[in-house]
Amino acid sequence: MKAIQDHYPPEFAHCYGCGPANPQGLHLKSYLTGGRTHACFTPAVMYSGGYPGNVYGASAAAFAYRAQSRTMGDGGPPLRFVTASLKVDYKRPTPLGQELFIEGARRSLEGRKAIID
Amino acid sequence: MKAIQDHYPPEFAHCYGCGPANPQGLHLKSYLTGGRTHACFTPAVMYSGGYPGNVYGASAAAFAYRAQSRTMGDGGPPLRFVTASLKVDYKRPTPLGQELFIEGARRSLEGRKAIID
Repeated sequence: MKAIQDHYPPEFAHCYGCGPANPQGLHLKSYLTGGRTHACFTPAVMYSGGYPGNVYGASAAAFAYRAQSRTMGDGGPPLRFVTASLKVDYKRPTPLGQELFIEGARRSLEGRKAIID
Repeated sequence: MKAIQDHYPPEFAHCYGCGPANPQGLHLKSYLTGGRTHACFTPAVMYSGGYPGNVYGASAAAFAYRAQSRTMGDGGPPLRFVTASLKVDYKRPTPLGQELFIEGARRSLEGRKAIID
């Protein structure tokens, strides 16, 4: 199955989170199935939050941020979009060294404005 | 002037955002003056948002996240805290290759709960 990122045109493929052409990026790959996106990712030890064994909070946000890409689309050719607002509520610490499952789902789409959970 | 991060005990100095002991981290240094924290940081090209010339949105969140550290304190020895919620409204694109000025200020402190802008 092709990932969403496999459809990126070269000029937009340097995203830190998921660009295949960024040699120092995270290289997240997310997939659209049944109206949801999902990604699996194991954070490297460098993304420590300072408190031993847990992920840096904003890195955890970065993983979620990227996995939600394309959730507002319809599975067709890639759309370009920008994030207007990001909100993360931290319910539990995010462990380091374990594979994380990240899921995004579209809550609403009105004109050019999409809300993604 | 000593940065907030210069006070970190070794066991908490591996933070990806600002830990002096994380060789692959961002090494942000923030300073507390007049009740506000501030940090200056020039994002490396690797933190591209995919759209040429602009910072990855969640990396921009990461810079802000870390610069706000310690704003809830009183300038004394480092306190440990965790972020319960992070919200970023993106008003304009964040440029790559330019030094960013990041500021944090405490809006309120009630018991163990601080709100930081």
